[in-house]
Amino acid sequence: MEIGEFELLAKFRERLPASGPRIHTASGDDAAITLPGTATATSVDAIVDGVHFSRDWASPSEIGHKAIAAALSDLAAMGAEPGEAYLALGVPDDLSETGCLELVDGAAAVASRFGVSIAGGDLTASPVLSVSVTVVGHAADPELLVRRDGAEAGDVLILTGALGGASAGLAICREPSAGEGLSADLCDSLSLRQLRPTPRLDAGLALARMGATAMIDVSDGLGGDARHISAQSGCALVIELDKVPVSEGVAEVAETLGLPAFALIGGGEDYELLAAVPPDRVDEALAEIAKLDTGATVVGRALA
Amino acid sequence: MEIGEFELLAKFRERLPASGPRIHTASGDDAAITLPGTATATSVDAIVDGVHFSRDWASPSEIGHKAIAAALSDLAAMGAEPGEAYLALGVPDDLSETGCLELVDGAAAVASRFGVSIAGGDLTASPVLSVSVTVVGHAADPELLVRRDGAEAGDVLILTGALGGASAGLAICREPSAGEGLSADLCDSLSLRQLRPTPRLDAGLALARMGATAMIDVSDGLGGDARHISAQSGCALVIELDKVPVSEGVAEVAETLGLPAFALIGGGEDYELLAAVPPDRVDEALAEIAKLDTGATVVGRALA
Repeated sequence: MEIGEFELLAKFRERLPASGPRIHTASGDDAAITLPGTATATSVDAIVDGVHFSRDWASPSEIGHKAIAAALSDLAAMGAEPGEAYLALGVPDDLSETGCLELVDGAAAVASRFGVSIAGGDLTASPVLSVSVTVVGHAADPELLVRRDGAEAGDVLILTGALGGASAGLAICREPSAGEGLSADLCDSLSLRQLRPTPRLDAGLALARMGATAMIDVSDGLGGDARHISAQSGCALVIELDKVPVSEGVAEVAETLGLPAFALIGGGEDYELLAAVPPDRVDEALAEIAKLDTGATVVGRALA
Repeated sequence: MEIGEFELLAKFRERLPASGPRIHTASGDDAAITLPGTATATSVDAIVDGVHFSRDWASPSEIGHKAIAAALSDLAAMGAEPGEAYLALGVPDDLSETGCLELVDGAAAVASRFGVSIAGGDLTASPVLSVSVTVVGHAADPELLVRRDGAEAGDVLILTGALGGASAGLAICREPSAGEGLSADLCDSLSLRQLRPTPRLDAGLALARMGATAMIDVSDGLGGDARHISAQSGCALVIELDKVPVSEGVAEVAETLGLPAFALIGGGEDYELLAAVPPDRVDEALAEIAKLDTGATVVGRALA
């Protein structure tokens, strides 16, 4: 695309009516002016064509969706109330203006669903499509935000949802024959786990309220993410792999690919939450998350 | 570079001791936790190899410097007190780990000079080197932040520093013969205007205190940036080009290139500030900025 940067930014702004209780002045100036609460959680997450997605199989709308959902997942893992997002787009020559607007619309739909204001951003030419998203979440007190370093021996590990769907979906996106033997609906559902992930913001807030002592989103794979909690909390974590829920169809895709099912479970990008919860709050936490339709499962515990 | 992402991020954190009155928990978690003031100004600015710099003539340290300086310049243009920065790096295979660390060190040096905490970020593989920087500034009241939309007829336009140096420096970086006839020191000084720009944070704060009604940083070129103020404030701006200070050596480089000098003055990337100031505060504003060694000049005024 030959970028008419200012004209295109003006079109973005028309589609992103950034408003909300914390927005004083949204984009269109050197910076957005916001009125934050007592504590903020801020995270940056970038996705790049050929690394985190491919334009061969992801539409611009899906790329915008994934970029903002992946960033918001970090706020979910803090138990933060989502507030604002800022999009920095690197746009190659061969992405049309329509494609850019579809990408922004895809991001805006996710933002809107979770009450997030897209308050600003940047647009630049780039040899490769990249989307860097900065998200800001809020809390009434910094101690309400759940870090990775508070797990204690005896805490119970709770996992939201099921794993493996994003990796199986990636295999199907790349090569549809990976889904052979599955129904078209199931193939679609797995692909959407890869293309349109859901940040577990409500579950994160619920787990924070239930006294979660440590929490992380399963974006890099269950094993690696659990090790982050373990290292930062200074305790061992035991995960019972046979208790980890696996998305429907994952085992079949793994078999088609000639892989063990756990290779897909550990593939990351499922954007579920892994939380350490004190034992006396576990039943309550499971019941709260069941109300959200996400579901949650006890998958292990923290040891000294 | 073959990225050992977690190991390299750990090295980044060792070099970026993010601390400060507003930092509760810096990077190393899903998000940084900060304790903001009443109002925040947030901006994102990305630079990409081949678009905003070239690794052929910019060192990793200079790329890190420029990325954060360009982002902080947007906070200067708001009259915000700089607070935190978040770096998202897209790193190609052929940038070594040493190169990555030099880039981060270059960014950290600028941050440190202006009291900015690098509180978090992201690291991803990318076919091309890109650095996206999110900066957050603070103010005790949102009305203390200077937008682009408040200029009124009668306001006087003040420009900090001198223009053209960054464009002349770019020409010299690309082709040293563009500086022929100039001393080596002067060539270096022009190159540094391109490679290591200075965000005018102190001048921005001073202009805000002096009641600036509108302000912008001259990053895209004086004409275009003035038009942003004009359009958003709903008044005409007259700039007397013969009053615009031009950096030493710019006229000579323009002549060598066979260009009129104003082609370089309008080239952008000088990161000076253009502010509209009520007429009764102009002398005081000029005196304040003179104290900062930046200098400032009356270059025009706002008309109805």
